[in-house]
Formats: sequence, C-alpha cells, structure tokens
Amino acid sequence: MNSPKRVLKAGILGATGTVGQRFILLLSAHPHFTIHSVGASSRSAGKSYCQATKWRMTSPIAADVKDMIIKECKPELFEDCDVIFSGLDSDVAGDIEMAFLKSDLVVFSNAKNYRRDSIVPLIVPTVNPSHFNIISHQRSSHSLNKGFLVTNANCSTTGLVVALKPLQDSFGPIESVIVHTMQAVSGAGYPGVASLDIFDNIVPYISGEEEKMEYETLKILGDLNQEATGFQLLPSTSVSASCNRVPVIDGHTECVSIKFKNRPPPSPEQIIQAFDSYISEAQQMGCYSAPEKAIIVQSEQDRPQPRFDRDNGNGYSVTVGRVRKCNVLDIKFILLVHNTVLGAAGSGILNAEIAVVKGLIKV
Amino acid sequence: MNSPKRVLKAGILGATGTVGQRFILLLSAHPHFTIHSVGASSRSAGKSYCQATKWRMTSPIAADVKDMIIKECKPELFEDCDVIFSGLDSDVAGDIEMAFLKSDLVVFSNAKNYRRDSIVPLIVPTVNPSHFNIISHQRSSHSLNKGFLVTNANCSTTGLVVALKPLQDSFGPIESVIVHTMQAVSGAGYPGVASLDIFDNIVPYISGEEEKMEYETLKILGDLNQEATGFQLLPSTSVSASCNRVPVIDGHTECVSIKFKNRPPPSPEQIIQAFDSYISEAQQMGCYSAPEKAIIVQSEQDRPQPRFDRDNGNGYSVTVGRVRKCNVLDIKFILLVHNTVLGAAGSGILNAEIAVVKGLIKV
Amino acid sequence: MNSPKRVLKAGILGATGTVGQRFILLLSAHPHFTIHSVGASSRSAGKSYCQATKWRMTSPIAADVKDMIIKECKPELFEDCDVIFSGLDSDVAGDIEMAFLKSDLVVFSNAKNYRRDSIVPLIVPTVNPSHFNIISHQRSSHSLNKGFLVTNANCSTTGLVVALKPLQDSFGPIESVIVHTMQAVSGAGYPGVASLDIFDNIVPYISGEEEKMEYETLKILGDLNQEATGFQLLPSTSVSASCNRVPVIDGHTECVSIKFKNRPPPSPEQIIQAFDSYISEAQQMGCYSAPEKAIIVQSEQDRPQPRFDRDNGNGYSVTVGRVRKCNVLDIKFILLVHNTVLGAAGSGILNAEIAVVKGLIKV
Amino acid sequence: MNSPKRVLKAGILGATGTVGQRFILLLSAHPHFTIHSVGASSRSAGKSYCQATKWRMTSPIAADVKDMIIKECKPELFEDCDVIFSGLDSDVAGDIEMAFLKSDLVVFSNAKNYRRDSIVPLIVPTVNPSHFNIISHQRSSHSLNKGFLVTNANCSTTGLVVALKPLQDSFGPIESVIVHTMQAVSGAGYPGVASLDIFDNIVPYISGEEEKMEYETLKILGDLNQEATGFQLLPSTSVSASCNRVPVIDGHTECVSIKFKNRPPPSPEQIIQAFDSYISEAQQMGCYSAPEKAIIVQSEQDRPQPRFDRDNGNGYSVTVGRVRKCNVLDIKFILLVHNTVLGAAGSGILNAEIAVVKGLIKV
Repeated sequence: MNSPKRVLKAGILGATGTVGQRFILLLSAHPHFTIHSVGASSRSAGKSYCQATKWRMTSPIAADVKDMIIKECKPELFEDCDVIFSGLDSDVAGDIEMAFLKSDLVVFSNAKNYRRDSIVPLIVPTVNPSHFNIISHQRSSHSLNKGFLVTNANCSTTGLVVALKPLQDSFGPIESVIVHTMQAVSGAGYPGVASLDIFDNIVPYISGEEEKMEYETLKILGDLNQEATGFQLLPSTSVSASCNRVPVIDGHTECVSIKFKNRPPPSPEQIIQAFDSYISEAQQMGCYSAPEKAIIVQSEQDRPQPRFDRDNGNGYSVTVGRVRKCNVLDIKFILLVHNTVLGAAGSGILNAEIAVVKGLIKV
Repeated sequence: MNSPKRVLKAGILGATGTVGQRFILLLSAHPHFTIHSVGASSRSAGKSYCQATKWRMTSPIAADVKDMIIKECKPELFEDCDVIFSGLDSDVAGDIEMAFLKSDLVVFSNAKNYRRDSIVPLIVPTVNPSHFNIISHQRSSHSLNKGFLVTNANCSTTGLVVALKPLQDSFGPIESVIVHTMQAVSGAGYPGVASLDIFDNIVPYISGEEEKMEYETLKILGDLNQEATGFQLLPSTSVSASCNRVPVIDGHTECVSIKFKNRPPPSPEQIIQAFDSYISEAQQMGCYSAPEKAIIVQSEQDRPQPRFDRDNGNGYSVTVGRVRKCNVLDIKFILLVHNTVLGAAGSGILNAEIAVVKGLIKV
Repeated sequence: MNSPKRVLKAGILGATGTVGQRFILLLSAHPHFTIHSVGASSRSAGKSYCQATKWRMTSPIAADVKDMIIKECKPELFEDCDVIFSGLDSDVAGDIEMAFLKSDLVVFSNAKNYRRDSIVPLIVPTVNPSHFNIISHQRSSHSLNKGFLVTNANCSTTGLVVALKPLQDSFGPIESVIVHTMQAVSGAGYPGVASLDIFDNIVPYISGEEEKMEYETLKILGDLNQEATGFQLLPSTSVSASCNRVPVIDGHTECVSIKFKNRPPPSPEQIIQAFDSYISEAQQMGCYSAPEKAIIVQSEQDRPQPRFDRDNGNGYSVTVGRVRKCNVLDIKFILLVHNTVLGAAGSGILNAEIAVVKGLIKV
Repeated sequence: MNSPKRVLKAGILGATGTVGQRFILLLSAHPHFTIHSVGASSRSAGKSYCQATKWRMTSPIAADVKDMIIKECKPELFEDCDVIFSGLDSDVAGDIEMAFLKSDLVVFSNAKNYRRDSIVPLIVPTVNPSHFNIISHQRSSHSLNKGFLVTNANCSTTGLVVALKPLQDSFGPIESVIVHTMQAVSGAGYPGVASLDIFDNIVPYISGEEEKMEYETLKILGDLNQEATGFQLLPSTSVSASCNRVPVIDGHTECVSIKFKNRPPPSPEQIIQAFDSYISEAQQMGCYSAPEKAIIVQSEQDRPQPRFDRDNGNGYSVTVGRVRKCNVLDIKFILLVHNTVLGAAGSGILNAEIAVVKGLIKV
C-alpha cells in the first residue's frame, strides 16, 4: 500500500450533515488522515460534535470526534489542515469553498457548485485521475502555492462512469446512453425524504439530477486539452437519464442501455470481460481505499441488489450484472453504486489519496 | 351506460389467488355480473371460500361470497356460467382453460399460456378491442357455438400499450421503445416476494417479464390480417425492456423512451395533447368499468407516483407524466398502471363488458 | 339518519397540514357541511388551496376546494362559518382558537392546547358525548352566546378509550392499564418522520405521547361533576403507556393489558361480548359519520392489522382482537384505530354532528 | 482472550437456512472453530453449499464454504466434528438432534424441541452458563462419554433475560413482567414473512412465541437443583408477553414493565446502574465472542432503535434505554436484541466457547 510519510490533518466542512457524517466515519478509521477540525454552520459552531449532530450512521461516532468543538467554516480556522473535505450544501458551498481555495487550502468538494467550472476537475477516483493534471493551471490562475480545488461527481453519475470507462477504453466511443436510476433516500440528505412521500411509493423525479448525469458524464469521460488548461467534453456522446427515488436506504441501482460508435458492437461476453479485467489508476497506485476490484461482475441473474451488494469493496466498488443485448441500442446491463461511499464522501477521500501519491499535497 | 339485459353469471377460476381475489372484489360490486361459481385447486375444493382463502385485499370479502363452496376447475361444474374469468397460475392454466374452451364456455384469461396463440386475441380493453374480430375464426377452428377464449396482457405491457396507442394513432409508427419498469410486489402473487428479499432492496430481474413486454406490445399494437384469421405483429418496432421489482405494494411505474419513424417527431406538447384527448373504444361503448379517461396526464413534475395515482379511474386509467425530450430517442415520459386492476383482473372484466356490447356473449 | 335542516358552513384552520387535509377530504364528501373557508399561516394566505398545499391524501382534492383562496386564521374572516374545525399545530393553536372562541364561534379542535382546560370538554364521539353538558357553563364563563370550544383526544388515546368504555360500563372500574402502541408515521404530520429515521427501524419514543395517554384517558372516561361545571378524572385508575413509532403509513396498533377492580374479573368471552354489543350514543343519535359498529371484534388470531383493518367503518370504528387472559393483569387484547380519521379529523366532524343533534349549533 | 489449544472442527446442521447462514457467517470469521461439515435436507445433500443456498446475509459467503458439499444430517457423517451447531427447523430437529446426541456428539441447538426437556439446559450465554452443570447428569442419563446437548433460547426471550438477570441479582425476585415485542422479519426464517403481509403493516401474532417467552424466562432465570439433576423454574414470577411482527429486517425491540417483590423497589437510577455494571460469566471467562458489555445503556431518549443499535457488541450485546417509572408496575424500559446473532446462532457459538473453557469439550 502506498502510504504518506506522515498522517495528514483533515478538516471537514459540513461535518454534521449526512455526507459530513460519512466523511467522519470513513476518516476516523483511516490510517493516513486524522480528523483535525470539523466545521458547520454558525448555528452549530461552538457546540461539541455529538451535541450538534443527529448521527445517522449505523456505526457509532468515533470517541475522539464526539467532543470536538465545531468551528465556523472560515479558512483562517482551518489553516493548519493539510486537506479539507467539503460535504457542504450547495447553497453555501460556492462562497465557502472559494474562500478556502483562495486561502491556499487543498479542498475536495462533494458539492455541485464547481463541477462545471472550466478549471476545476471533476474526478471519479476509479475513472479519471488524469484530470488532476489541470491543477498546475488552476493554481497559476488563482495564484496559489499549494492549494487547489477538486470536485467529485454526483452519486448516480459516479456509478455510471465507472462502468462506461472500461467500455470506452476497450471498444471505442459510446454513441448513446439511456440510463434509468432507482436512487436511495440517503442521497437526499437528512431529514431529506419524508416517510410519507416514499413508503409504498416511487418518486419519479429528483431535482437537477438528470441534468447532472447528462453533463457530468461528458466531462469525466472527456479529455483534458493538450495544454492541460481545460476540458474537452465528449463530443459525440448523448446521454439521456431518468432519475427515480425509491424506498431503499443506501445504494443507487441503474439500468443502462448503450450504443457504440464502432460496428459491429462488442458482444455481452466481451463487455463482461472488459468490466472484469478493468483496473483503475487508483488501484495501480496502491491507494489505501482503492477497492480490490473497481467493478465487480455478478453472475447471478437477479443481481446486483442494493441491500446485498452495496458494501462490495467497502462501498468503493461498482457492481454490475445482467449484461445482455438491447433490442434498441446495443447492450444493456444493471449497475449498483454505494451512493454515500463511492458516490460521495468516499470519492473525496480516494481522490485525496491519489493527490498524495501524485505529489500534489505536501507530506 | 351500456347495460346487458340481464345479470350474467360469472365463474372465477383460481379464485383464491391474488388475481382471483381481485376478480371477486371487482365483480362483487359489479352491476352486470353476479359471482356464481368459484373454482380452485383440489386442495381447496369443497371448502368455503373464506376458509380456503388468505384474503389479502384491503376491503373485506363480500358476504355472499364468503360461504360459497369452492369447486374443482372442471368445465362440467361451470356449465351454467355465462362467462368465466381465469386467474389461474400458468402451470395449470394451459390445460384447464383449453378444456373450458372446448366445452364451449366463454373464457377471459389472465394467464400467459395462450397470449402467443395464433388465434387467441391478446386484448387490453382500452387499446385493441378490434382484435375481438378473430373470435368468429377461433370458434370455427375449435367448432364452438358460443364459447371463445380471450387473454389480457401482462401487467407491465398493459400500461405501456395504453400509452403507446394514441401516439401510434396520432404520429405514425413507433420505431423503438426502451422501457424500464419498477414493479409492485403484488404482481408476484401471494405469498410471492419474501420480505427478506425486498425490504430496503430492489430486485432487477423478473423471470420472463422482459420477453413478455417485448413480444406482447407488438401483438397488441399490431393488426388483424384482412381475413381476421390471424395477427400481424408490428413489423418494424423494437422494444427493449428492463424489469425491476421494487418495495411498493400496488402499481407499476415505467420510464419510457420512444423514437418515431416519422421525422420530425412530435413535440412534448403534441404528445401530451395526444394522451389527453385519447378516448378508447371501451369508453365510447359506454362500458361500465371504462374509466372516464383512459389516460390521465399529471402536470406536477414529480408525478405519477404509485401510492397517490394508482387508483385513478378506479385503477382502470393509466397515469402519465414528465413528458419531455429524450437526448437519445425522441421523447421520454413516466407512466403508472394499477397492476392488479387494469393490469390483470380489471382487463378481464372490461374485456367481458366489451364482448357483451359486441354481442359475443348471449344475454 | 339525523340530518340538520340546512347545510352548515365549515371553516377549516390549519387546512394545509395533514389533519387539515383529512378535514378537507372528509368534509368535501359530507352531506351536512360545506367547506366555506380555509385558513392557514400568513405564508400560505392569499394563495389558492392547491398552490399552497402539498396534498398527501390518496384521493384527489375536491374540485371546488382546489381554487379556494386561503385566509389568515383571524376570527373576523370566518364570522359567517357555522362551525370551525381546527387542525392547527399546537404552537399556534392556543392563541388562535381562543380568539375564535371569544368571537363567539363554534370550534372543534384537534390540538392538544385546551385538552386539559377545566371547562373545555375532551370528547371522543363514540365514548363521552355526555361531556357536551359543560358547554352551557363554558359559554357563561366566557360570556358567549352561541360559540364554544370542544377538543378531541390524542390519536392513541382515542383508540384506547373506545375499547375501555364498554368494559367500564359492563364490569365496573378499571384499576390499571398497561398500553404499548405502535404508531403510524402519519401521526407525526408532514414532512414529519424522515424516511432515514424509520425505514427498517422502530423509534421507541414519541414526545409527550405517553403523558397524553396517561392523562386524557382519565378525563374522557371520568364524569362531569353534578353541576356540570367541571370534570372528575377517574380517581383510581392507573395508566402506563409506552409509545413507539413504526414503519406503517396509517393506523395505530395498541397492545393493552388491563386489571379490573371487581373480583373475579370478566372472562375473555365476556369481554368480547361487551365489545361486540357496544353501541355508542353517536350511533344511537343516527349521526351521519357514526360507524355501524363502534367496535369491531376480529376473530382471526392474527388481527387486527393496520393495512387490512384501519378503514373499518370508514376509519370511524376501532377494531379489536386477540382478547385473552393476561398472566399479570386480568385481560389483554390488541386494538387498532385509524389515527387520522377517528384519531383526529373524524372525531372533530362526528363531534360536530353530535353537537347539531344536541341543539348546540344553530341550524 | 481464552483460546482453545487447537482449532475445533464444527459441523452445521440446517446450514442452508437463515440461522444456518448466520452460523456460517460467524464461524467463518472465528479463530477457534473451522467449518468442517455442513448438513441439510436430502434435497440439498450432494450439492455444493452455494448451489443449494439462497444466501441472504449481506456479507458474501466465505470462499472455502462455497464449494463444500452438503451432507445429509446423519451422525455418522459428522463423527469427526468436535462440535455441532444446529439451525434445524423444529419439525425435524427433534429426531436428528437426539440421534446426534446418542452418537456421543456435542450439540448446540437453536431449535425449540428440547428447551423444555428436564435434563437439557436452556442457556443464554451472558445469563446462565451455570446451567452447564447439568451436563454431567445428562451424560450419565444418556450413557454418553463426551457428547451433550445444549439449547439456546428463543430470540425474544434472550433479550429479555439478559436485561432481567442483573436486576434479579441486584434487587431480588421479580414478581411480574409484562413484555410487548416488535420483532424483525428475519426471525421467521426464509422465505418467512411475505412482503404482502408486512409492508405498511403490523402482525400482532407470532405462533407459539408468547408461550415460549412466558416459559423460557422462568427456566433460564431459575436454578439448578442442589444435585444438579434438574431445573427449578422461578417459582413466583409471572410473565405476560404480547408478540408482534413489524417491518424491520433485523433486531427485536421489546417494551418491558416489571414489578419487584421487595419494597420499596429500586429507582430508575439504580436500575440503570445495575444494567451498566453487569458483567456476565462469559465476559469474565474471556470468551472470544463475549461482548465488551453484555448490556449497553443508551442515554438518548429515543433509543435503542433496531437499525442503529442492533449491531452493538457485534450483535452480542443487549441495548436498553428509556428506564423510567411505570404507573402500574414499578419500572419500565426498552430493550433491543439482535435476533439472529445473540438471539440465535451467536448464542450457540458463545455457549460453545463457554463449554470449551469449562472443559466440557475435549481440545
């Protein structure tokens, strides 16, 4: 395993929310990071973490975090942090994260605010760590010395691009993607989805989600330009997403149909082979949180299923199954991603591990 | 309303199962039919209905059905029935329904066994009652006097074809359909889906379901040949289905993307207009169970939802919403169908009402 | 049926909340009342009802209510209403309801604020309509001409006292009651219980609920004093309640153990007989909403169950089952009450019907 | 930790069922036992474990168990096992377990069949390991050399007696117990509870469960007679149980009210102190699976909750909360037990660990 020379001090913004709680849970068991500072709204600031937080993880809060005093999300209060993980809501993330960046801090954000920024990379750690190459340009644009800002993708997009990446690598450009999601309630945060809205029910709409999937996929699977100063979105891929909320606690399930540019398209067996043999850069680097397999192929005909497969690879693997021909496009399959691990906090952490190996964070 | 001259005697096969129970529930409140005989397996035969049945409807069993003695499913025991509704499981429906047909009885079957038969119509009452025109040929083929056999469609297919019918009528042939279902547990019968399989979970596979949707759609939306002796499946339409079981009690939700043959395709507004103005033959005939609207367009952006919309039109309407452009095909939308009313027993009953108006059942 | 001479004009306070929505639903189908005015917070006032309301009933909003303009909850805006139904939250109900009362309006409140008031009756319509006798004293205390204020009970208490009433009537004082509730999420209003809190979970605590059950039972089953100027709480009955929130949409289930003062205590058969033969004053009066049976005894050993029994008597009946000996107290049984019909809005409406028959509302 | 000198060979009967699966899961990660043989019905015998099993645990099957060939449950096929864990259904457990015992094998049974046997101990490992003292008498009665049979308790009883044990130890005899359970669906095995029976529902009845709680509590908390040849049930304790099935996957929640013999009864604070300071013999012995705390006291007012507390102590702890005065008996509180860990397979395993330390199993 690729370990840094010293344990890095982590600050967590939005630490009391569900993404923040997942950051706490994952980092408190992480050998390379120590939770140094926790930030939240001024309403929570000054309280102890356990006082201010309605903890909704199923494992208890780490003892040493319980009594940490929550700070306001001001850069000067986090100056001694080596790395900042932001689980902030998008209504405040824009200003706060920019302030942290301008203070030369290293920020890994789960918020959507800068995902479309022309010099901020949108990185799914088991897909496109090469996009870290824009950091040098980002630093010079903002006159930074050591700080930078990286975002991870929307939870549903994350699952999708992990599956598409090896297919694009092996079989060339993907012409079109139709994806239908069945998304867990934890994706909406806390309190999030009211039980009266989702018991014995489906909500076939999640605000902004389809647009995110249709855009972010093109940026993540696209290239940096040659000068590494900007991104080239996939030029000829169409993505159509339909997003649904379902009565599941964790784990987004997606039905995907795709069509390739090249004829003849690959067979289901070739697709399965590409999934199964995919090794991401994060794994090759030996990052601590990188799963043994970025993609797990389930051979049972009724899998993946969220309750039984979401924790595969500790939530860092994407599980696929039912790879078969599509009567309309070429191939269809099912995928499952743990929406609050790889689909949120976990991506931020694994991205930070990659940045350490790439020498972007001073250790 | 179009009423028969006398109340017709109905026999129900498979009366203790979930489809059978729905037949009991709908017929016991029906002014044109009276429940005359109930049939089930030899294990139940001889017992009273309430003794033999684990009743799983949320309204109580009609008082006069409670004590009816269950018969074996033999045609001679149902000879005095004007019409037979079959909710039999497919493992026994084949032989029993054929025996009933050969005994010159009128059979409306919910089973899949004869849906692909070349002289048995597959009728969704608010879509293709014109397919009743094959009955005359069916009778002569089987040397029948008054009997015939009609099947209704698979529950998921039912919702889909109701939505596609007005689009095909208004905008010409549909080239391709990608449909993704989120199906209620009641579709699997009783005991059906184990709670340990579906709590906090999705099962992305339902045995045989995708094949049914991909085939039945083509038969229902296709034409009779000119001599009314056989069916012409839609020749150039491709359907690709992905079927999922979700933790919902009743109501199948479907995400549909379609592409039309004709260019340019209709706009979302034109599609909505076609849905909204659709009036099926069953409605025009004034059938008792025909809903006021075969298709209800929900304008709220997060609808239809099963818990709130499945009972629209007493379960005989299909509710659609979120009609919008698809980045890959032309148009996408959401639909909802009550899987055990219009998607099962209700189709059989409304088909019988149509047959009465068409003069196919002696009154 | 006992009908008033004219249709009464109803005003609904807190009309956009879940209790308010249930009032709307029940009153829009009610022959004796017409929905005349709807009131809500100043945030909603001025909007149309359907604009301001996240409608969470499974039947649609009545057409004529949809476009009603919401008023602020000020008595002068409701002066022409014959009767006011309040579904207000307790944080505002205190002041508003008192203002309405002082304006000589007739108020039926579902809020807890005045349930312990020494001159406000706490009436469960199928239990203690005799407590209306305090109205004359209440009017004179507040110098009112035609107005008065009546509260209905907490939802869980309602189910309990309906079951206890015939037992007290038949077998004398009840010495002790241990009750354990499993309460539906709809009892917490909307958005109420977060799905992340209650999926695959039980919450063994509902703020203030146990105290309400332990107090209200004693007031409802107690007597008015002889002068009808105050209430005598049951002097020697102890009630111990444990209240739990469970993943059920509607319907509170309660496990009840009781001990009688008199020895020997009645047998389970005698208890069943007392339940089964109970006819409440509301039924005797022929009130429109009074159920055919105030208590329905289910003989199947695994009933009542909320999904299958909550709508008994259109939600106005209490269903009981599993009456058997208790090893510690005398008798134990299960009861089920529809928490938003008889347990909330329905009680208000049936109380109003009783008040009409009793001549307390001018018609 | 107290480790045996060698790794013991374990055989598992009923290995494909839910209790059997839990045995597999717990044992495959256990340092002192190795899974040596798996047995199931003749229908499964001869198949590989993963072929024959619908695996319903959320962690995957251990690699070395996947391909084990299932044996029939005959003692001669398990002769080389040091210890047998039985997860057999009660309809077959009686004969099979007796045959294994008579073959001088060591059997830890989760089945109910021998729990009331006068020379078979019923042991909850964190409550009454002293009942192992009857083994010597059991062996001589059955003329055994090294074999014996021990049963663990019903899942709901297990939680109850863990909580009652320190109270009885600290405050003397308990006169009466009223307990209401809310039990998870996993307690009914697989397929077990149909989703159509339990979605949006409560089933207030579990066959035989109340009788088990009312009897087993008295045996477990009672004493061996002086000669260690039989059990003295608690002579003057009354237990009244009401058992309910709720829509929860794992974890039984119980509302308990108790009355002590001695007056005055302990205060809630004293009860909490007794819970908190309780150390069971299994912990003192340093058994591998013994939890750090046999009883965890949750101080938050709305806990314990099954989804958040069932895994406390890896499922071997009982969590209690809301200790308070009862208006009818003395004290009431809530407890939670993981029904398939401590409440089933886990008890068997921890009992085996105790037996090893006590020298009852040859190592």
